[in-house]
Amino acid sequence: MFMDITEYMRGVGKKARAAARQISIAGTEQKNDALKAIATQLDCRRDELVAANKIDTENAVSAGLDSALLDRLLLDGKTIDGMIEGLRQIVSLPDPCGEITDLSRRPSGIEVGKMRVPLGVVGIIYESRPNVTIDAASLCLKSGNATVLRGGKEAFHSNQAIASCIHSGLVDANLPVDAVQVLQTTDRQAVSELITMPQYIDVVVPRGGKGLIERISSEATVAVIKHLDGICHVYVDDRADLEKAAAIALNAKTHRYGVCNAMETLLLHESIAKPLLSSLAPLYWDKGVELRACEQSFAILSALGPQASLLCRANDGDWDTEYLAPILSIKVVEDMAEAMEHIELHSSRHTEAIVSEDYSRVRHFLAAVDSASVVANASTRFADGFEFGLGAEIGISTDKIHARGPVGLEGLTSQKWIVYGEGHIRG
Amino acid sequence: MFMDITEYMRGVGKKARAAARQISIAGTEQKNDALKAIATQLDCRRDELVAANKIDTENAVSAGLDSALLDRLLLDGKTIDGMIEGLRQIVSLPDPCGEITDLSRRPSGIEVGKMRVPLGVVGIIYESRPNVTIDAASLCLKSGNATVLRGGKEAFHSNQAIASCIHSGLVDANLPVDAVQVLQTTDRQAVSELITMPQYIDVVVPRGGKGLIERISSEATVAVIKHLDGICHVYVDDRADLEKAAAIALNAKTHRYGVCNAMETLLLHESIAKPLLSSLAPLYWDKGVELRACEQSFAILSALGPQASLLCRANDGDWDTEYLAPILSIKVVEDMAEAMEHIELHSSRHTEAIVSEDYSRVRHFLAAVDSASVVANASTRFADGFEFGLGAEIGISTDKIHARGPVGLEGLTSQKWIVYGEGHIRG
Repeated sequence: MFMDITEYMRGVGKKARAAARQISIAGTEQKNDALKAIATQLDCRRDELVAANKIDTENAVSAGLDSALLDRLLLDGKTIDGMIEGLRQIVSLPDPCGEITDLSRRPSGIEVGKMRVPLGVVGIIYESRPNVTIDAASLCLKSGNATVLRGGKEAFHSNQAIASCIHSGLVDANLPVDAVQVLQTTDRQAVSELITMPQYIDVVVPRGGKGLIERISSEATVAVIKHLDGICHVYVDDRADLEKAAAIALNAKTHRYGVCNAMETLLLHESIAKPLLSSLAPLYWDKGVELRACEQSFAILSALGPQASLLCRANDGDWDTEYLAPILSIKVVEDMAEAMEHIELHSSRHTEAIVSEDYSRVRHFLAAVDSASVVANASTRFADGFEFGLGAEIGISTDKIHARGPVGLEGLTSQKWIVYGEGHIRG
Repeated sequence: MFMDITEYMRGVGKKARAAARQISIAGTEQKNDALKAIATQLDCRRDELVAANKIDTENAVSAGLDSALLDRLLLDGKTIDGMIEGLRQIVSLPDPCGEITDLSRRPSGIEVGKMRVPLGVVGIIYESRPNVTIDAASLCLKSGNATVLRGGKEAFHSNQAIASCIHSGLVDANLPVDAVQVLQTTDRQAVSELITMPQYIDVVVPRGGKGLIERISSEATVAVIKHLDGICHVYVDDRADLEKAAAIALNAKTHRYGVCNAMETLLLHESIAKPLLSSLAPLYWDKGVELRACEQSFAILSALGPQASLLCRANDGDWDTEYLAPILSIKVVEDMAEAMEHIELHSSRHTEAIVSEDYSRVRHFLAAVDSASVVANASTRFADGFEFGLGAEIGISTDKIHARGPVGLEGLTSQKWIVYGEGHIRG
């Protein structure tokens, strides 16, 4: 079927804008009813979802896609349970909309405050996980936004089946079906249109690899909530409790390798480098973590008798690499100032941690390090929406504008000023 | 002198980035000392400032620039007093940086909160008023940001003289001079470079005409805090107090004509159109305000015997025009829903007001109208930073992302997440 993508996308945008007006003023109960109805739909239509997913996975197998992608693509009883549980969690979160703060009387006699309101229409561009369709739609719905969803082409049939459940749920709750639109095309041009329609789209959230996000950021004329790479650092001070330091450094690297809040570079004060590495390095090596060491740490580590494949010298590129793998770069520094200088030069401004028992140094590190999350004496792995108490997240922003760090319901809203007068005029 | 603009701007950016690190962690007292020292400099060097301004105004006269521009360009004893007073006001405002909010203990045992921090480097692009140089620099300095200022070429010598005062003030307070850089070129290419250096510039604030702002928004790869046009509406409900309504409608249009928060369109419920216009129209006509009326209001107004030059029929374009002049478009509507529909279609989302004594309608209007400021029973003219209690403003944002409505010190900051643990790891 021939489809004029530009015309199609304008239509999607127009419908989203109209639906946004309605959903922006829907009450909390009505939005929760829709979320519950969507959960019921998913639960009752499991066979349909699994059948649609089967088409996608068979196509993916024929296309020779790798097992990691097949794994992310899979929709089975367990992933459907997960989606339903996610919906119930979002039902239980407080509705951010309508909150009025900072209401005060001004000398002129007017009362001025701020009311939290939805952004309007949120575009989400993501890859092959079909559960993102539910996560993103439900966060946007709860925060009163209309959504346009563009998932990966590998998950096309799964996403259409999920969209059908969402639409039934919206109808059950008497909300406009256009409040959540899943694109019916996987044409790349649709993305280009989506990110250049500021009249219809208020913000786009790209979820995926660095290439996708950089492409979208550079082409977009609408605002982008960016989730770029996580080159996260842990600095262990000479005044650290070395037991805590070892536990944190091990957890930050090895709890999960493929996540953006994993540590990629360990910075060690020269006074504690030898004792800490002596206890820590064997733990890394036991887990098969390759250590890429600076001159000084290489000397210490070599003396520990490692497997040759798990130790090498770091080169300049290592300090700027997000491994997302069992690889860690290690650098010895003279003092905290040098550690902070290294972070300033090489961090992607996602998450950095300090391990130190020194009160003033911790305070200075927290104040001066310019990253979305700055952590004292805990693992970088805590930097996520659930751990921070947001309930769920649509992404982790490495930007400073609008939303920073884990972005939950509040990040999907804005505030407008409201003024109460009684015939006041300006003199 | 030949100047490689690209190279020059990279240098400016690099120096700004370095200065931003220092100023971001400067204490409140040190920043206030700098603001006071700048005020002292301005006060002691009045002759120098006036002499520099004389070059600019003479050039402007020779170039045949109009009197409005000459008026904006002028730097005399009174405008210098105004700049000094502005600095003192900013000294008295609370420092937004370092504020920690929402600190709570999570089930994991970590404590999570948000710390307010500067954005980093703010670029300001403005036109011929030299006092903006001080306003913008002082707001950015107080909020801990480094600034790159690019004023209009007509004010070049005035701005350089002001920059010299700022630099002396920074030196006196032991802060880096590069914290405030006034560009030493008026080449347009410098603006193009400024707005495409995301590595050095975190956000740009264009202050000026719609053309400037649209050009910058479409070309910029850094974030833009946009201040677009103000097509503001006042809706007078049939349940309005007509005395209040007349006072508000008169004030919103005639208090000042050339400002973005002036009313451009008056929407009248059909039941009160005749009595309200009968008392209001003569007041407008006394002030020389031209009324551009819809069919229904034209009939009412014609019967009042106006001067021919002050009444005409509105055409379609009128509903989308920011007059910034003694011109007002008037439309009669059947009910509040029609008024809100008109606002949805034609508003620039700056400021809208309702005049009504009906509790539920006021509540609905405030909740549902999607503009930066929504006002009940008061003039649209209140929508500014000073009236809202921000102390001063760098602009009024018609965007929803990051900053909305009047943007003061808080709009020039971001928040980062901070985490306190005691060796916590993620399980």
